Amino acid sequence: MTFPIRIALLGSTGSIGQQTLDVARRHPDKISVVGLAAGENVGRLQQQIAEFKPRFVSCLGKNLVCGDSVCLPLEQMATHPDVDIVVVAVPGGAGLAPALSAARAGKIIALANKECLVAAGEILLAEAKSHGAQIRPVDSEHSSIWQCLVGEPDKPQRLILTASGGPLREYPAERLATVTLEQALAHPSWKMGRKVTIDSATLMNKGLEVIEAHRLYGIDYDQIEVVIHPQSIVHSMVEFADGAVKAQLSPPDMRLPIQYAMSYPERWDNADLPRADFVKIGRLDFSAPDFELFPCLKLAIDAGKKGGTFPAVLSSADEEAVNQFLDRKIRFGDIAKLVAQALDEHIPAAEVTLDNIAAAESWARQRVTDLVRSL
Amino acid sequence: MTFPIRIALLGSTGSIGQQTLDVARRHPDKISVVGLAAGENVGRLQQQIAEFKPRFVSCLGKNLVCGDSVCLPLEQMATHPDVDIVVVAVPGGAGLAPALSAARAGKIIALANKECLVAAGEILLAEAKSHGAQIRPVDSEHSSIWQCLVGEPDKPQRLILTASGGPLREYPAERLATVTLEQALAHPSWKMGRKVTIDSATLMNKGLEVIEAHRLYGIDYDQIEVVIHPQSIVHSMVEFADGAVKAQLSPPDMRLPIQYAMSYPERWDNADLPRADFVKIGRLDFSAPDFELFPCLKLAIDAGKKGGTFPAVLSSADEEAVNQFLDRKIRFGDIAKLVAQALDEHIPAAEVTLDNIAAAESWARQRVTDLVRSL
Repeated sequence: MTFPIRIALLGSTGSIGQQTLDVARRHPDKISVVGLAAGENVGRLQQQIAEFKPRFVSCLGKNLVCGDSVCLPLEQMATHPDVDIVVVAVPGGAGLAPALSAARAGKIIALANKECLVAAGEILLAEAKSHGAQIRPVDSEHSSIWQCLVGEPDKPQRLILTASGGPLREYPAERLATVTLEQALAHPSWKMGRKVTIDSATLMNKGLEVIEAHRLYGIDYDQIEVVIHPQSIVHSMVEFADGAVKAQLSPPDMRLPIQYAMSYPERWDNADLPRADFVKIGRLDFSAPDFELFPCLKLAIDAGKKGGTFPAVLSSADEEAVNQFLDRKIRFGDIAKLVAQALDEHIPAAEVTLDNIAAAESWARQRVTDLVRSL
Repeated sequence: MTFPIRIALLGSTGSIGQQTLDVARRHPDKISVVGLAAGENVGRLQQQIAEFKPRFVSCLGKNLVCGDSVCLPLEQMATHPDVDIVVVAVPGGAGLAPALSAARAGKIIALANKECLVAAGEILLAEAKSHGAQIRPVDSEHSSIWQCLVGEPDKPQRLILTASGGPLREYPAERLATVTLEQALAHPSWKMGRKVTIDSATLMNKGLEVIEAHRLYGIDYDQIEVVIHPQSIVHSMVEFADGAVKAQLSPPDMRLPIQYAMSYPERWDNADLPRADFVKIGRLDFSAPDFELFPCLKLAIDAGKKGGTFPAVLSSADEEAVNQFLDRKIRFGDIAKLVAQALDEHIPAAEVTLDNIAAAESWARQRVTDLVRSL
């Protein structure tokens, strides 16, 4: 890789997008932001354009002043020959199309969107493989696994995904169903977007990550364990054939996995990134997740095991249900119920194709919307 | 590496030696024990010869029946062309000569003897380098660091050596000086030889490991931290430039680092090796070591920083003092005092040569013996 690495950042105004620009700001010699793409947040994108002066911009919102930048559709930015790394930080189902484009263009993809791996992972990974694209995970768990696998010649025997347990880990069971939006958004250790924060509260986030881990590392579901680790210092672990476990640890900060997806296999000094002080940390706790209180985790693992279009339904039904919860249309406990019902009713497609996945996704969204109306 | 790997096991009747044979027993297709060497324990060596039928044997004791095996001096066994890996599990200062021979013969050395690295690490590593020998650590801490460095292109920024704290970690301060031999030998997590168990109780063991780590990985003393971790699950950690920490974890069992020193870079399945169950483990604790209550740790780090012949004096004075404690000639608290006095009185040699190291070592042993007599 020659420096500066030219990155196109898709989803620049969200949480991961902004933190990616934090990393870029620290490394002007190593990272050149050649493309910025955002959804509706024109104001923030405008500021980012002024600061980073990208060659290409893309925006779903109106009235963007591009200055010297060229306006490009997302797909074109993701495949442009002058882009080395495509950071896919577009949220939800919208991440799939640009991720697929980048894969077909043989790019290095720093993937912060988990929904596309969950819903269409088989297709995305197959496209990446056949076009020589590289998918680098940008979440703390899969980055941790990736870091632990570096230099190891053989497949691991077991993956241990850690979960903070989210803001509701110690909530009284009888009040879980009626948790308020504010309570569910108060994540104790991670600063993240709203959708993923709610998914952390239901443990759906961890369930989606189990499916991601299965897809990325080819490990059977029975060899993937979820362990509650409230301090969020151990970001995940890998066990090898000889019983040795490797872990990656650090104070929770998304800029570390973001930066590693760009610096790999090197590591760059970054004074912004916090250092772990184990004496101060004092202790690291581990416990089993409660599958009954947090049914989304089991829903996800079961959907993953069923495969086919089930993970797509899981992911889309959850996305719709979480949106409804964020809009205060449903109660917290309804999220799992709605996802469970959509999965129950789903008639799987015979084949995993992009069309079938898209159909399953839009059916799931519609079904959840209808169910909410009849609540 | 072609299988079976031919190993010469120097120090076969000690704790590491026996555990090495446990590993060999599990992997008859991968490991062939071609040489066995022991000190005085003729009875156990005789059993091992009967079981493993090595081509070469070596013994300091009398009346060994060699059977079909050829008796060879240690040095010849360590350099024989039909040996791929020399396991140096000879205890104490006696480990240096065979380690040097193996280094000069360009062997892979599985090094379980820390004294030779401490006393003559610069010379041993230089000889290994110039003859293409490879030194692979066989203690849990340095093996952990080694495992964490696999595949990482750059030097780490910091090493975090974990210490169980030994059997006296929570002992009342006022009773530390008069701890009995039995109390000092009751290690809570590791099954090891007597010398290293006493060194664990004084924390000298950790001090020696700091010097080893400095030598093996070229890390400044100020970048090596010691953290008390009573569960002995995290075997040590490495911090990189970006703040990411990697750790290797497993239930304490020396057979894992022993096996890895032979299987590297692969990992071999081994049903004897215990698996970590993090839910059962529940928590991992970390705290700062008490340099005042355990002065040996600071003595070692200071001797390491001074360099030259000081580490040799440290190691030999400690070896002699521990022997005297094992013989019930001195009190527990005397170990640190004797080592401190030897270091204080030592007039360093102008140059680090094998002769000067040997002279410093025998001076230190004699000085401790004399000091004990006058107690």
